[in-house]
Amino acid sequence: MYKTDLEIAQEAKLQPITEIAKKAGIPESELELYGNVKTKVSLDVLKNAEAKEDGKLILVTAINPTRAGEGKSTTTVGLVDAFNQIGKKAMVALREPSLGPVFGIKGGAAGGGYAQVVPMEDINLHFTGDMHAITTCNNLISACLDNHLHQGNELQIDKDRVVFKRVLDMNDRVLRQVVVGLGPKANGVERHDGFTITVASEIMAVLCLANSLMDLKERIGKILVAYNVEGQPVYVADLGIAGACAMVMKDAIKPNLVQTLENNPVLIHGGPFANIAHGCNSVLATRTCLKLADYVITEAGFGADLGAEKFLDIKCREANLKPNAVVIVATIRALKQHGNVAYEDLQTENVEAMLEGCCNLAKHIETIQAFGLPYVVAINEFATDTQAEVEALQTWCKRNNHPMSLSQVWAKGGEGAVDLANQLVELVEQENNYKPLYDLDASIEDKILTIAKTCYGAKDVHYTDEAKAQIAMFTQHGWDKLAICMAKVPSSLTDDAKICGAPKDFTITIRELRPSLGAGFIVALTGSVMTMPGLPKVPAANRMDIDEDGNITGLF
Amino acid sequence: MYKTDLEIAQEAKLQPITEIAKKAGIPESELELYGNVKTKVSLDVLKNAEAKEDGKLILVTAINPTRAGEGKSTTTVGLVDAFNQIGKKAMVALREPSLGPVFGIKGGAAGGGYAQVVPMEDINLHFTGDMHAITTCNNLISACLDNHLHQGNELQIDKDRVVFKRVLDMNDRVLRQVVVGLGPKANGVERHDGFTITVASEIMAVLCLANSLMDLKERIGKILVAYNVEGQPVYVADLGIAGACAMVMKDAIKPNLVQTLENNPVLIHGGPFANIAHGCNSVLATRTCLKLADYVITEAGFGADLGAEKFLDIKCREANLKPNAVVIVATIRALKQHGNVAYEDLQTENVEAMLEGCCNLAKHIETIQAFGLPYVVAINEFATDTQAEVEALQTWCKRNNHPMSLSQVWAKGGEGAVDLANQLVELVEQENNYKPLYDLDASIEDKILTIAKTCYGAKDVHYTDEAKAQIAMFTQHGWDKLAICMAKVPSSLTDDAKICGAPKDFTITIRELRPSLGAGFIVALTGSVMTMPGLPKVPAANRMDIDEDGNITGLF
Repeated sequence: MYKTDLEIAQEAKLQPITEIAKKAGIPESELELYGNVKTKVSLDVLKNAEAKEDGKLILVTAINPTRAGEGKSTTTVGLVDAFNQIGKKAMVALREPSLGPVFGIKGGAAGGGYAQVVPMEDINLHFTGDMHAITTCNNLISACLDNHLHQGNELQIDKDRVVFKRVLDMNDRVLRQVVVGLGPKANGVERHDGFTITVASEIMAVLCLANSLMDLKERIGKILVAYNVEGQPVYVADLGIAGACAMVMKDAIKPNLVQTLENNPVLIHGGPFANIAHGCNSVLATRTCLKLADYVITEAGFGADLGAEKFLDIKCREANLKPNAVVIVATIRALKQHGNVAYEDLQTENVEAMLEGCCNLAKHIETIQAFGLPYVVAINEFATDTQAEVEALQTWCKRNNHPMSLSQVWAKGGEGAVDLANQLVELVEQENNYKPLYDLDASIEDKILTIAKTCYGAKDVHYTDEAKAQIAMFTQHGWDKLAICMAKVPSSLTDDAKICGAPKDFTITIRELRPSLGAGFIVALTGSVMTMPGLPKVPAANRMDIDEDGNITGLF
Repeated sequence: MYKTDLEIAQEAKLQPITEIAKKAGIPESELELYGNVKTKVSLDVLKNAEAKEDGKLILVTAINPTRAGEGKSTTTVGLVDAFNQIGKKAMVALREPSLGPVFGIKGGAAGGGYAQVVPMEDINLHFTGDMHAITTCNNLISACLDNHLHQGNELQIDKDRVVFKRVLDMNDRVLRQVVVGLGPKANGVERHDGFTITVASEIMAVLCLANSLMDLKERIGKILVAYNVEGQPVYVADLGIAGACAMVMKDAIKPNLVQTLENNPVLIHGGPFANIAHGCNSVLATRTCLKLADYVITEAGFGADLGAEKFLDIKCREANLKPNAVVIVATIRALKQHGNVAYEDLQTENVEAMLEGCCNLAKHIETIQAFGLPYVVAINEFATDTQAEVEALQTWCKRNNHPMSLSQVWAKGGEGAVDLANQLVELVEQENNYKPLYDLDASIEDKILTIAKTCYGAKDVHYTDEAKAQIAMFTQHGWDKLAICMAKVPSSLTDDAKICGAPKDFTITIRELRPSLGAGFIVALTGSVMTMPGLPKVPAANRMDIDEDGNITGLF
């Protein structure tokens, strides 16, 4: 019987976080400890290192995952341990887990097996409170907006055109569509509203894209909250609370330092989902790592069609980051799924189906090539993989000239990715032609079409009438020069969750667009993707418990 | 021009919290630091001191306050500094501020002037995340409940008889009455719901009344969430998530140590409002202080009709605490208000009106006498008080044989309450006849009548038909032997906010009752009291800001 992630994490020998900080080159005076094994890191660390040259930036992405995930975080965490094992100074920048999936299907999310970040329980629960600060900041805006409507509505806000929603860091489907302000007049103005999960909020996006506290304040001020009765936009700044919002975020803006099971430094900061948001940890965490380490490994959520595309088109452009190499994680299990094997049968050997599913891997490789970046395929080994399957995949990679490495970090920790790390040390020295896929100057439709063709393999994009009207209106307001943040199901290259492999000649449908003016992008919602998940029949919460001594079970 | 509370707090010379802990006798191994000036304190501190004798317990209460407050926290904080100045080992146990009032009317709440708790900004914002943990725990229950309705409803919950509400730590009136689950079937089951402010939630109440993490888990399991189609109660335990809820609260259950401006130790933990909840900090914080210090000062919210009554009838009974003395805080301003002076005119000298308003003070003194406790009146001096007014009040106290002291802690810190502290040192040595007002065995109506007559001066209690039906139903379920937690406006002894002084022969109306089975009391809502406040026309949030260096303004 294997140990659970939680059991392995609980056996870890953690070093005091002050020691980890020392290893990373962060002076103790720049720390704000949260207990002995977590700490906030002052933004001065980055400021004081401005003149220093950046380390090499490695992105970890994946193919379209099964619902268990491809092990991107696991690979990322194992990689930093591997780099340190081969004597290189490396750090990781990761996203913070959301409580929604923790209580929902997934349980904890901080790597897995012997490639984890610890303290696992804290990271998965409240951590240092960043998510809660975002929730508070967001809902302060909503409360002030509805209060404005109630107290005379000086800004003449059209109550039926409020676009800013409330949030909770919870999977809670009944909050998707609500009516607020029912009852007597003292209960405020009645209107339709809805809740989004915190990680899909624009506050989360601006936290992750901000360069400083003042930049954060300015971006929050620019967030569109509603239109007035004349159809003109109303912003957070118009409500007069951008300062209060920035104040609420004063600690949340500082990256969090923790460690891997092998005691290497990790910054975990910000956690937008990659299906319904831009899917990357904060710019501040990535940039801080780049000043502190020679090799920085980071991940972007889900497959290269989602996280990597947004990392390369949105985050790197916005923050002027120059990525040096990409790791594309694939599992035998997911490849079999893309070869049409049912989820229940993924544990059974099926070389043929796996080879058929390699079309999905090939498509994501194409995507990375389109961005002009060197890559290596990491086969993330599962205990259920057979030798025949692994060998067949290795052969497939060789035959198609794809650099490849077998990653065994789940079972072996850093040792399991030494070969991968060695390959990356060479790969990052290659000159590369990284360039975002589209120019910001292109039209909204052209930008979306470029993404859909290049990264999904679609032949065309269909717009609902609502979406068409929105594009016309946004263009009128001059918002068409922003980046695009696609919202799409993660399991398929298409906008239909059930379609596997690498289909061609399909059309994706844009249902709705939402301007995120503080973040600097337009969210394009495809198919039926939701910004507030629901809980499964038996939520993960039902297996969780804690005993008298504070020992947690069931959080895995 | 006076300095603001925030300016005074920002000038404070804070000691490292490890030094404050040492002063309090808490070993460093029992701390979990949050930065350098805040720390969680392990529950082992209390456990390891079980055999030690308790210190003396002093409750600070007040008359019915003006909307600016009577300065109870200020007096409480000043008192601990005064006790330390006269060489006594003293500690304070206080409630945590809620973000609702911080962004609403009141601004920050951690004492005032030179009697404050610091770091003021952190305490008033996210502090150590306790409020956020309560919000999460509460909303996890709601999400799982609605998920249960959606996923087949095995427990046969009647969707129109769900009694457990969602919460946010925000003043947000439009959330009082909402409809959730609108839209397609995938959005869950449509039903009426509402949000309560976090500090009025039962999770907050059980946190404040729990004796241990296991007690907390058990109490959460006993919380009533709904009735099934047969009218039988459904509890959190039936949803199978009491363990997950306790896990969410694993850090929140530990008291927080901070310091006064004069570097004396303060535990701040739990913060139920006293108008709509039971109004006292956690039992664990109070009991920990009693083991560490010889004199423990604590406060209960609003006037003696609300906070003190619940402290003495609910908290002390439940936790088996023996209070030794009571401080009744009065201000000249509030007394004038009770003498029918308008809020705008309170700064103008008016001895006659003040003496007329002393009937309110007299009533609260009677209440404390009814509990069998010795007391001292603390006149909390304001800069606008005139000498004639102060002397007239002193004379009134002397003439009526009420022990009294002029407290100048706002202007002078601990020095301003040395006389009060000296009086208390003698007072706590008196034998007292403390006894809760009512027996738990009495009927719900009898218990409410006892409180209304003794503490409010009412002659009778009127019940709406809804309330009558609830009492019958609760009695049938055997819930009539619980304590009563009155919810009432704080500004008046009656259930009408505008009635000042000490009226007689009035009737209060009980509109609705809510069973808090985990907390162990029935909440009785009088008049039109709301469990979700609203924001004022110009919220305090609008004056708040933060600069590049993290300096906060407008939080006062």
